Amino acid sequence: MNLTDRAAIAGIGQTEFSKASGRTELRLAVEAITSALDDAGLPAAEVDGLTTFTYDTNPEIALARALGMKELTFFSRVPYGGGAACAVLHQAAMAVATGAARTLVAYRALNMRSGARAGSRAGAVIAQVNAEEVARSWYAPFGIRTPAAMAALFATRYAHEFGADSTDFGRVSVTSRAHAATNPDAWFHGKPITLEEHQSSRWIVEPLRLLDCCQESDGAVAVVVTSPERARDLRRPPAMIRAAAQGAAADQHEMTSYYRPSPADAQLPEMAVVARQLYTAAGLEPADIDAAMLYDHFSPYVLPQLEAFGFCKPGEAAALVRSGAIGLEGALPVNTHGGQLGEGYLHGMNGITEAVRQVRGTAANQLASAHNVLVTAGAGVPTSGTIIGSAR
Amino acid sequence: MNLTDRAAIAGIGQTEFSKASGRTELRLAVEAITSALDDAGLPAAEVDGLTTFTYDTNPEIALARALGMKELTFFSRVPYGGGAACAVLHQAAMAVATGAARTLVAYRALNMRSGARAGSRAGAVIAQVNAEEVARSWYAPFGIRTPAAMAALFATRYAHEFGADSTDFGRVSVTSRAHAATNPDAWFHGKPITLEEHQSSRWIVEPLRLLDCCQESDGAVAVVVTSPERARDLRRPPAMIRAAAQGAAADQHEMTSYYRPSPADAQLPEMAVVARQLYTAAGLEPADIDAAMLYDHFSPYVLPQLEAFGFCKPGEAAALVRSGAIGLEGALPVNTHGGQLGEGYLHGMNGITEAVRQVRGTAANQLASAHNVLVTAGAGVPTSGTIIGSAR
Repeated sequence: MNLTDRAAIAGIGQTEFSKASGRTELRLAVEAITSALDDAGLPAAEVDGLTTFTYDTNPEIALARALGMKELTFFSRVPYGGGAACAVLHQAAMAVATGAARTLVAYRALNMRSGARAGSRAGAVIAQVNAEEVARSWYAPFGIRTPAAMAALFATRYAHEFGADSTDFGRVSVTSRAHAATNPDAWFHGKPITLEEHQSSRWIVEPLRLLDCCQESDGAVAVVVTSPERARDLRRPPAMIRAAAQGAAADQHEMTSYYRPSPADAQLPEMAVVARQLYTAAGLEPADIDAAMLYDHFSPYVLPQLEAFGFCKPGEAAALVRSGAIGLEGALPVNTHGGQLGEGYLHGMNGITEAVRQVRGTAANQLASAHNVLVTAGAGVPTSGTIIGSAR
Repeated sequence: MNLTDRAAIAGIGQTEFSKASGRTELRLAVEAITSALDDAGLPAAEVDGLTTFTYDTNPEIALARALGMKELTFFSRVPYGGGAACAVLHQAAMAVATGAARTLVAYRALNMRSGARAGSRAGAVIAQVNAEEVARSWYAPFGIRTPAAMAALFATRYAHEFGADSTDFGRVSVTSRAHAATNPDAWFHGKPITLEEHQSSRWIVEPLRLLDCCQESDGAVAVVVTSPERARDLRRPPAMIRAAAQGAAADQHEMTSYYRPSPADAQLPEMAVVARQLYTAAGLEPADIDAAMLYDHFSPYVLPQLEAFGFCKPGEAAALVRSGAIGLEGALPVNTHGGQLGEGYLHGMNGITEAVRQVRGTAANQLASAHNVLVTAGAGVPTSGTIIGSAR
């Protein structure tokens, strides 16, 4: 059985994206879910399934109590941080298609700036000493303790293998910030940057400059998933889940897959696993994709994603970006909301809401044609992807 | 789409069940998975999906590296401790039926006696302060900090509502220990107990005596799931996943659903949610169930499970047990492996392996007829269940 167009997004919701929400992650989740249900025109009591990230702190049953949900017949979690962003849609689509639940909400709420920051691994390390943390102990003594440090080694290798440099990374950031500048929901609304500003921003971990690093954000995003038949009777036009898939590849680590043989280690083979499944399931090819919301925790990772999804050949992404292809007027607009560099770091879930807005025709930076929009989840980790499409 | 008989268990594996494994949870998982794959006659390289509990410490990618798996196209986790036991089968069945993966392993490895014990909540509490932990803070000052203390209040209420007493709980323990006594895999192999021994065992938290409490165990269990078509070509006869489902009910807490209106709070409405789905999906009724592996972290919880699954009416389970119905010669043999009271506390996963053995005809305490075997997961928490059946 193929999942294509067997489930649809009927509602989307979010809080403001900030640096200090001033409220709990539970409240943020409740607000985003309430907003998503209002968008769909559905009462909370009809929700019978919830799915989120293992990293999320909100118990499903706490949300059910807070929101007035009754029975739940589906609840699941997806591991690997931002890698879960599109997998939660996959979970919801499977549940709808197989009858496990009728109306699901995928959610993610985080105070990642005012609360526990991604660079401070203390909580996780205290809680759980497992094989992945043991693997990290080989890098930690050399200072590779934060996501930026982990990503910097990958960016260095990519640049070395393919002749890219900091300006190539910078053009990704400049593009995202240009899109954020005209998106009122974005933290960096009204604040575009130039390549010169990127180039003069300080090193965080060479070759990553400050403006290569995504934001740390407080906020929440929620998405309501149900059957296409039911979605058609609700308040908004359904955004179809054309395909959704997960991927991990050989020698996979979480941000530190350093043992892969060159030149494969300058690519993202786990994204290629996702790409293959998405295109096969949806019966689409790269030329059919109208826009892409690519996970941009660090700007260099956008380049190999363009390659993994077949928008250009390995090593050619820098040239593709230089050509202007990823801008609003380009052949493949990327991160039209401003991405995590410009809009907010919602662990990838805001890529899904932007894809839905584009398909509905309600995005701040609306494209003329958006029938198939690719969304990716965490890059450099076991990950996932989805193609959101208009009803056809 | 109905999941009934769309996926099958092709292999089962486990380590010894002990009080001090002397090795890591990673190694235990690797051993159980290797054993399950050997049982199926499949190489690890063919596994493309993994699913486990949120509580499990073993990263999927660490297992993939250790075992020689290649690409993974599915990885998920299920929350709420033992409530996940049958939900991981549901995850695997959905993945197979929708093409997300071809060969999955559901696993659980734990050093729950020699490592972090269930009664010591320090790790989880330090790691994550969430709404469920806040709710617990209302009980903790009164000493309700361990699973036994949480369960004791429920057992007291059940006994009060339905006139059960400690001997009714004891008969459950005596039956499980009788089954364990003739199961060489059981920790309590060769060690049956009498009701008098149960009655003279010390209080842990009244009305729970020592012999009402399940073991704390070290060990691991793994289950290989694939399509029925493929399973038929493998080493063992397939055990079909007739149905699998999850359930949480109104006012649901994790072991502490104390706010439900009486007399519903002396029942397990979340188990009733699971029961309804299982019977509907599989087209079966209680009379069709040949045996039941019921989650027995604490003996009193077996009684309302018999009621929730329709083997008797609410409040009649004690009489049903007194009649001998749950013994090997009874109308509904329960926990033929000895359960978690007698075989080992593997967070419910050993109920699944026993159901497979019964369906295959290879159990230590083999029943004459075992075509449909019910398995339940954690009782008193958001939970799950499955019916494992023979090919028909």
